[in-house]
Amino acid sequence: MAKVGIVMGSDSDMPVMAKAAEILDKLGIDYEMTIISAHREPDIFFQWAKGAEEKGFKVIIAGAGKAAHLPGMCAAIFPLPVIGIPMKTSDLGGVDSLYSIVQMPSGIPVATVAINGGANAGILAAKILAASDQKLLERLKAYSESLKEDVVKKAEKLDSLGYKEYLAQM
Amino acid sequence: MAKVGIVMGSDSDMPVMAKAAEILDKLGIDYEMTIISAHREPDIFFQWAKGAEEKGFKVIIAGAGKAAHLPGMCAAIFPLPVIGIPMKTSDLGGVDSLYSIVQMPSGIPVATVAINGGANAGILAAKILAASDQKLLERLKAYSESLKEDVVKKAEKLDSLGYKEYLAQM
Amino acid sequence: MAKVGIVMGSDSDMPVMAKAAEILDKLGIDYEMTIISAHREPDIFFQWAKGAEEKGFKVIIAGAGKAAHLPGMCAAIFPLPVIGIPMKTSDLGGVDSLYSIVQMPSGIPVATVAINGGANAGILAAKILAASDQKLLERLKAYSESLKEDVVKKAEKLDSLGYKEYLAQM
Amino acid sequence: MAKVGIVMGSDSDMPVMAKAAEILDKLGIDYEMTIISAHREPDIFFQWAKGAEEKGFKVIIAGAGKAAHLPGMCAAIFPLPVIGIPMKTSDLGGVDSLYSIVQMPSGIPVATVAINGGANAGILAAKILAASDQKLLERLKAYSESLKEDVVKKAEKLDSLGYKEYLAQM
Amino acid sequence: MAKVGIVMGSDSDMPVMAKAAEILDKLGIDYEMTIISAHREPDIFFQWAKGAEEKGFKVIIAGAGKAAHLPGMCAAIFPLPVIGIPMKTSDLGGVDSLYSIVQMPSGIPVATVAINGGANAGILAAKILAASDQKLLERLKAYSESLKEDVVKKAEKLDSLGYKEYLAQM
Amino acid sequence: MAKVGIVMGSDSDMPVMAKAAEILDKLGIDYEMTIISAHREPDIFFQWAKGAEEKGFKVIIAGAGKAAHLPGMCAAIFPLPVIGIPMKTSDLGGVDSLYSIVQMPSGIPVATVAINGGANAGILAAKILAASDQKLLERLKAYSESLKEDVVKKAEKLDSLGYKEYLAQM
Amino acid sequence: MAKVGIVMGSDSDMPVMAKAAEILDKLGIDYEMTIISAHREPDIFFQWAKGAEEKGFKVIIAGAGKAAHLPGMCAAIFPLPVIGIPMKTSDLGGVDSLYSIVQMPSGIPVATVAINGGANAGILAAKILAASDQKLLERLKAYSESLKEDVVKKAEKLDSLGYKEYLAQM
Amino acid sequence: MAKVGIVMGSDSDMPVMAKAAEILDKLGIDYEMTIISAHREPDIFFQWAKGAEEKGFKVIIAGAGKAAHLPGMCAAIFPLPVIGIPMKTSDLGGVDSLYSIVQMPSGIPVATVAINGGANAGILAAKILAASDQKLLERLKAYSESLKEDVVKKAEKLDSLGYKEYLAQM
Repeated sequence: MAKVGIVMGSDSDMPVMAKAAEILDKLGIDYEMTIISAHREPDIFFQWAKGAEEKGFKVIIAGAGKAAHLPGMCAAIFPLPVIGIPMKTSDLGGVDSLYSIVQMPSGIPVATVAINGGANAGILAAKILAASDQKLLERLKAYSESLKEDVVKKAEKLDSLGYKEYLAQM
Repeated sequence: MAKVGIVMGSDSDMPVMAKAAEILDKLGIDYEMTIISAHREPDIFFQWAKGAEEKGFKVIIAGAGKAAHLPGMCAAIFPLPVIGIPMKTSDLGGVDSLYSIVQMPSGIPVATVAINGGANAGILAAKILAASDQKLLERLKAYSESLKEDVVKKAEKLDSLGYKEYLAQM
Repeated sequence: MAKVGIVMGSDSDMPVMAKAAEILDKLGIDYEMTIISAHREPDIFFQWAKGAEEKGFKVIIAGAGKAAHLPGMCAAIFPLPVIGIPMKTSDLGGVDSLYSIVQMPSGIPVATVAINGGANAGILAAKILAASDQKLLERLKAYSESLKEDVVKKAEKLDSLGYKEYLAQM
Repeated sequence: MAKVGIVMGSDSDMPVMAKAAEILDKLGIDYEMTIISAHREPDIFFQWAKGAEEKGFKVIIAGAGKAAHLPGMCAAIFPLPVIGIPMKTSDLGGVDSLYSIVQMPSGIPVATVAINGGANAGILAAKILAASDQKLLERLKAYSESLKEDVVKKAEKLDSLGYKEYLAQM
Repeated sequence: MAKVGIVMGSDSDMPVMAKAAEILDKLGIDYEMTIISAHREPDIFFQWAKGAEEKGFKVIIAGAGKAAHLPGMCAAIFPLPVIGIPMKTSDLGGVDSLYSIVQMPSGIPVATVAINGGANAGILAAKILAASDQKLLERLKAYSESLKEDVVKKAEKLDSLGYKEYLAQM
Repeated sequence: MAKVGIVMGSDSDMPVMAKAAEILDKLGIDYEMTIISAHREPDIFFQWAKGAEEKGFKVIIAGAGKAAHLPGMCAAIFPLPVIGIPMKTSDLGGVDSLYSIVQMPSGIPVATVAINGGANAGILAAKILAASDQKLLERLKAYSESLKEDVVKKAEKLDSLGYKEYLAQM
Repeated sequence: MAKVGIVMGSDSDMPVMAKAAEILDKLGIDYEMTIISAHREPDIFFQWAKGAEEKGFKVIIAGAGKAAHLPGMCAAIFPLPVIGIPMKTSDLGGVDSLYSIVQMPSGIPVATVAINGGANAGILAAKILAASDQKLLERLKAYSESLKEDVVKKAEKLDSLGYKEYLAQM
Repeated sequence: MAKVGIVMGSDSDMPVMAKAAEILDKLGIDYEMTIISAHREPDIFFQWAKGAEEKGFKVIIAGAGKAAHLPGMCAAIFPLPVIGIPMKTSDLGGVDSLYSIVQMPSGIPVATVAINGGANAGILAAKILAASDQKLLERLKAYSESLKEDVVKKAEKLDSLGYKEYLAQM
């Protein structure tokens, strides 16, 4: 049974949302992913958001751009955590999406991650589930360890090559 | 029968929304005014927005602050014009409200006025109705004329007093 | 007789303004489209704006960039609704155009849509006309329905392909 | 045993952080609250953050202003969810705090709420715990219900008083 | 005969515009000051702007706030230099006024000074006139000299008092 | 004898500064153009700025980017009008240059034009000189007339081609 | 002999600059403090900046607001480190001062601290001197220790009082 | 023995950080350069920062992007000057990095340079060391002299070629 719902307002958000899915795949977390526009199909949206708890979702990851209402409207209906991903926009860089998602009124929080922060949304969803799942927490720690090792390897490479050669190979 | 619905997400928006109502009063336009939070009571909101056309509303004026979803969600459901008023906010000055209201995705416009622009929302609603109501258009023109006269009087006062005395009387 | 006037300050705004015209074409609304610079040819502008009501325009759509005065000056002269489209700018992203259009003083509203929001300006003009035209309202509802169907189809495609294949086909 | 750690970088953040504590009190969730500056006492901070999992914390709520590093550094050490509250600042309104908290690099998310969003941080912490605690979820739903009722009462009051009298009583 | 026209869109701009007038008074430059709203009374505005050259104005100082069109519309009509003063606004601090005045399209410059920069607008007008008036230039230099002396005196005061006493006397 | 000095802080500003020179060429105004960095060669800068009046300059056009001090430092030394051009910057779009140039303290104005507004700086310089040169004023008016004609031609082209063909030819 | 020069462009900056002086007093570092406007008295400024090295200054702390050129012009002349303090401004919050100080071109750095960061400028000056003064470094470490102790005491107070009582005593 | 530590949070910062290293190479200053993420490997970071003084570092140059905590956390631990380089970001242009680095709380300064200001960070480090190293100061002055000469040569080239030919050769 899927524990995470991933929803986006437009398929142009897919490259960012896919990063969240990849993390969940890597950590062995079941999810369902769909495209629903709260603006273009409010009825379908309401039905989906209202059914999300019963489906077994424990977390929703919602991504949207510009006047990004999707995450906030999910949070108005779904009683468990909603994670919002502000999309980068071509004119305002995503500050519009960010403000529309993070500045929620008292009572209805959205757990907002960085602009285009698809991977972080996936990790945050996993951390929320890991609060009651020790095995998932171990997998998360192993994943964090792998991130450390990546940096350590780069530092070693810089140390052996020097910055000029390192740059040349980039 | 009310032709304009005025809706705000919180009663803290009342001083600004009242400016819209005052204009409609002055121009003899019937309206209904209420407080509905799309975030805190999404069911009530949906019901209200879906019933708005049948009630006879030709325009909705919606005001909201911060991650201001109310105008955009009205526009997602109500098929006629929705006017959005971005509220000034204490931290970001209202640029958050403005972006959340004006940056709507293609297909779902919100007719956005200035931050705290309650009076202009009322005037815009009247102009929309006046597109098919010649008598209202005449009243609107008379109102515009009165605005001109206010400025002319101030110019005359400045002319007769000089700026030092004018300032002293402000 | 044209019911909508579309005006832009420079032909560099044409790709955005064309989106408004396309919507009006699709919905069967007559319009006139022209290029007039309020800054470079104020006399021609004044004459045009003053004659707009008599021509039968019910709505004006005006697009402009940077210190975008065209929509506001239309609203100062034309007594019916003016819709403003802020153009994206290469240096400030269009926040200059947006502020110059939306922050109108009390008495003279401009119905502002998103940066580069040409299509939404067309739809908003149609909604304004639809407030007194039931047949147009039906066409607008059918258009909205078609937008919903587009999203539903994408959701079905995602469901059947999975996100990896969906991305690969983008 | 406390399930939530509340930490702030300075006691000037207390009025906002108290809102989070009040929510947790209301929902019957145990928490520990302290003041630790990641900048002024990095050793104490490290020790505290490293011990947080063992203490039984399932969530940390961290508030900070300006170059707000506290939430992000918590997230670098504590493996479970960290909620960040950007403090309003007197010069930049809190946009500095917001960017410093929300724009975390890939791998280390902070669940960011609105500027000065103390209450929402408390509610989000409760939602995270409620993902595995059905009773808490019921209490959360009852709390949401009470928020709805507040708005309904205000709408009724407006309906009976009219906006002029409502304003006069504010 | 007045050489400088001072115009503002609203009498709320008077405190800032008065600073410009005070400088012109001090430097012995004739000016005319009035209140004209390009938005509320476009006909009066056009007439005034078109008559400005014939009246003998060599420079216009125009102040306006928010979607500040007055300076730019003066520059569209009056062929000699127009100085624009962006007014501070209560919501956006004046960045809206600044962008609306300074970001003029190619062909129609407005000589923009700082937000609320009334005195500097007066000085700039004087400098423009001084380009062909050696005596005025001497008065301007004397004025600049007096500004220097003010700072020198403050430096001496600080030197003799020390900063603690200086602060105590502020 | 050159009446206008054109100075830039770096030769990367040349494409923008050249637009000012082209306008002066077109209007038959003598100018001198150079590259001087107030930051890298303050002595050379001081000498140049102090000698500018004696050389016969009536106006200086100064362009600079980022922490753009060149226009303001010219204005601190040269007693006649200084026009500042804020350069677009790759990171902040030029808002840094704009603030550094326009927000001058009381007493030392810089006549600021739009970001990358080279042509407008040239036109503004011409307008300043035209305040005491009737023949130049006539040439300026003819130039403005030519700008009008350009727009009129585009409007006629749009009228005859329609927007689809117009777009296709762009 | 004074090792640090403290300079401000206006005595309105004194309350912030005094914080830098207080830190230097506390750490036993000799300094000279003065008021010099690079804009109003460029000759005095140049003389002062050119003589700074010979006076024995090892660091200059310069504070300025709006189009804040003072720190950057010091850095153009004085060959050792210049620390810049951006002043908070009433309209733009100090983002103008910040950009004007921090965005220096390549070759001429200014070590910029936070908006209104007077105390931090003093500490940074001390750290620069401490790079070659072991005793001063010890005093700096003791000062840092005292900052830690302040936070520890507040945490203990919160622990014993609880947040409600702590807030009540603020 | 290396006197300067150069540290970056990710190897994507290398092109900017290399500019700092090149300056130090040119001025004959020993340095060590490494990659350490305060977020991904906080233990390694702490160890490195705590050992920096003992290694003999007199200055640390730290570069980071987005919620850029690395410079500030270095400054929390290392008692001597820390120079921060805000990286340009693809969405917000680097204003996020800038605020996260420069807006440090009282007690913990970071000497911030321009966005992507790698070369300036190197020069500032050299200036800090030069406060107690007369020979290095001489080399720095020679370097500054070479920057002047570059500009002088460009001015001469412009003088001989004219701007049209100069542009053509760019």
